[in-house]
Amino acid sequence: MGRRVVVIGGGAAGMSAAAKARRTDPTLEIVVYERSGFVSYGACGFPYAIKGEIARVEDLIVRTPEQFARQGIQALVRHEVLEIDPDRQTVRVRDLRSEREFVDHWDDLVVTTGGQPGRPPLPGIDLAGVFALRQVEDALAIKEWLNEQRPRSGVIIGGGYIGLEMAEALAAHGISLTLIERLPQVLPAMDADLASQIEAELIRQGVDLRLNQTVQGLVGDERVRAVIAEGQTIPAEIVILAVGVKPGVALAQAAGIGLGPTGAIAVDDHQRTNLPQVWAAGDVAEAWHRVIQKPVWMPLGTTANKQGRVAGENLAGGDARFGGIVGTVAVKVFALEAAMSGLSLARAQAEGFAAEAVQATAGSRAHYMPGHQPITVSLVFDRNTRRLLGGQMVGREGVAKRIDTIAAALQAGWTIDDLAELDLSYAPPFAPVWDPILVAANLARK
Amino acid sequence: MGRRVVVIGGGAAGMSAAAKARRTDPTLEIVVYERSGFVSYGACGFPYAIKGEIARVEDLIVRTPEQFARQGIQALVRHEVLEIDPDRQTVRVRDLRSEREFVDHWDDLVVTTGGQPGRPPLPGIDLAGVFALRQVEDALAIKEWLNEQRPRSGVIIGGGYIGLEMAEALAAHGISLTLIERLPQVLPAMDADLASQIEAELIRQGVDLRLNQTVQGLVGDERVRAVIAEGQTIPAEIVILAVGVKPGVALAQAAGIGLGPTGAIAVDDHQRTNLPQVWAAGDVAEAWHRVIQKPVWMPLGTTANKQGRVAGENLAGGDARFGGIVGTVAVKVFALEAAMSGLSLARAQAEGFAAEAVQATAGSRAHYMPGHQPITVSLVFDRNTRRLLGGQMVGREGVAKRIDTIAAALQAGWTIDDLAELDLSYAPPFAPVWDPILVAANLARK
Repeated sequence: MGRRVVVIGGGAAGMSAAAKARRTDPTLEIVVYERSGFVSYGACGFPYAIKGEIARVEDLIVRTPEQFARQGIQALVRHEVLEIDPDRQTVRVRDLRSEREFVDHWDDLVVTTGGQPGRPPLPGIDLAGVFALRQVEDALAIKEWLNEQRPRSGVIIGGGYIGLEMAEALAAHGISLTLIERLPQVLPAMDADLASQIEAELIRQGVDLRLNQTVQGLVGDERVRAVIAEGQTIPAEIVILAVGVKPGVALAQAAGIGLGPTGAIAVDDHQRTNLPQVWAAGDVAEAWHRVIQKPVWMPLGTTANKQGRVAGENLAGGDARFGGIVGTVAVKVFALEAAMSGLSLARAQAEGFAAEAVQATAGSRAHYMPGHQPITVSLVFDRNTRRLLGGQMVGREGVAKRIDTIAAALQAGWTIDDLAELDLSYAPPFAPVWDPILVAANLARK
Repeated sequence: MGRRVVVIGGGAAGMSAAAKARRTDPTLEIVVYERSGFVSYGACGFPYAIKGEIARVEDLIVRTPEQFARQGIQALVRHEVLEIDPDRQTVRVRDLRSEREFVDHWDDLVVTTGGQPGRPPLPGIDLAGVFALRQVEDALAIKEWLNEQRPRSGVIIGGGYIGLEMAEALAAHGISLTLIERLPQVLPAMDADLASQIEAELIRQGVDLRLNQTVQGLVGDERVRAVIAEGQTIPAEIVILAVGVKPGVALAQAAGIGLGPTGAIAVDDHQRTNLPQVWAAGDVAEAWHRVIQKPVWMPLGTTANKQGRVAGENLAGGDARFGGIVGTVAVKVFALEAAMSGLSLARAQAEGFAAEAVQATAGSRAHYMPGHQPITVSLVFDRNTRRLLGGQMVGREGVAKRIDTIAAALQAGWTIDDLAELDLSYAPPFAPVWDPILVAANLARK
């Protein structure tokens, strides 16, 4: 009989690990314990299912437990792992339906417990109509609330990716929206001058944007009716908490699995933890950042998939390596696309680089083509070494995938001079003869 | 008084050289001789002006001679340079309006005489209604013919970029179209299996596509009425010649300016020719190909702009370098986007690489997002060194700029393993969690 692999968590990282392990070694016994009712879903699609652009939340499910079973992977939903015993190589599991507890043995353990959305200890946080967004159940509950309660007003707490995507989603339901962000800008990973274009778009779309504001509490009867921020009462028949995601490390930490400086599980480039035969991947783990050459915690679906696959291959006897990230993200905010890769100017300076930034605006298509839109490109580089450190872009088209060129340049360790030499594609419907990236790179060279 | 710079040709390369020289050294005297009636125009936009997507051909003009004059650049249209005397450092010029000839002196000469569309010696080639497409006058003449003659049938001879773009342009006028290509496929730079998707799109759009066919002649009275191909008579009230562009080297060759193995002017990475103080740039010149490490002739607007700028900076005392190309091109064919960078499989094998190709198809957006379209990605690599040699893509969205990631990988000299490690952007409206490029790279690694 094959070795037994236990995976904790059936999200992107966990199911990637399970599937890759299965393909690599058909003799393995593989079981996945997932606390929620679903495995293997596109969590990044939740806002679009809530918006109604995708008909049903269930459309986000990639594979069901039944489909995994046919692959020889046992994916058990509503099963919560309560404890890891690394010495006995066991986990203690509770079947949330039967309330039954049992102990399972593993030869290899993969920890993919994901991130945990922040639930600030605010008065009224447990009122009906207050939602975080992490699991399928959250998305289903929000959709149900929208359909049954038809809220006319809403407050989103937090101006990160999920807060911004949820603004678009709720606005599509005709909800009068307020977005409250504690910091002076939305998308804190982006430099303020580019983030201001996103803020302008939110306002243009009718969102009451409140920066630099702190929420004091939520009020209502059984259900939420308003949010109190800076002494003001803001009507809210629905509230989305999009604040302070943290790595879900409680289980790992209790078992002695080592955390890194970021508070997430420390892993090497094979997704090994400090404990033998214990692997970690996805939003619970750190990832190596190629630009700053140290581990960061930056929970993203792409990284979860890649790390999961590496863990799965290695525990099955392979020798895969996760080379790290450069921190590439893209987000759609109403009609705007925003994307970044590498370091913002603020981050680059904080990391000790002699960083400066240039900003250029150029067209998404040839200037004479109808529909062309300005793209603002900001490049961050080290003025001493001329090394490219990061790029950010905002515009109404051609942004989200254009950032990939910056991602490649960062992985290659290029200078701004290398970047300026790029032979980028040109055709009038898709780009001007000097692509916005080249315009910015030429400006940076001066 | 400053040194005198003569530029032959007022297209992208010539005007880029003039403008950059002016910015680099304000004391230079700069004169540009242009045979046609226009300088500084976006030639790649011609098909879209003919299609009617751009209102007027004149909208493609970036700057007029009057605007250049205000920058201190004398741009003389309808002036043909008849001869270069490199010993005396003069050119003999004919003013095509006055028929007057004169001799002008130069300290530096920039040859940007561009490409020359093929005009095969076919019977009937000089009939009215038969057009090549190179200059503003050609585009104007085609538009006039369309407006005044309202042709109901048309033949395009040649299935390269211009032929394909002109098919879309003429179809928009309700013209029943035949496209005749001598080779067994359209876009010969692309591998046949991907080009076949373009062929399918042409047929889907109602184009009568005839591959492997040779044109014997054109027939008509004063104006063209039909094209004879393989013994068949194909009605044609308009004919577009989109065949066999060659570098326009006659003038250069007569002056002893050295040509390279491709038949275009040989230049070093400073855009110097073999003659002192004589520079060349754009479609008349070769360009260094980074992947095969030798000069190629691949006339493209992006290269013309870059080479022109390098020539202009260097003749003005600068030290700029053109690092070369990787051969990136993109083209829109009706609703399809096609793009490639680097070598096709056929070309890679011809260049002696142990080349093979993998092909993957993945979505342009997350699988659950409405509007997602399949993108076919082909990667060409050397099976011994694992080095990436080229990439090709076809699809209905997200192709033209996605190729830039391949362009960056080629410039970096990456293996398929490096490519597979890329941290590409992900958001459901713009990409699946495994971008099509990564899907193909993972397949290539196996």
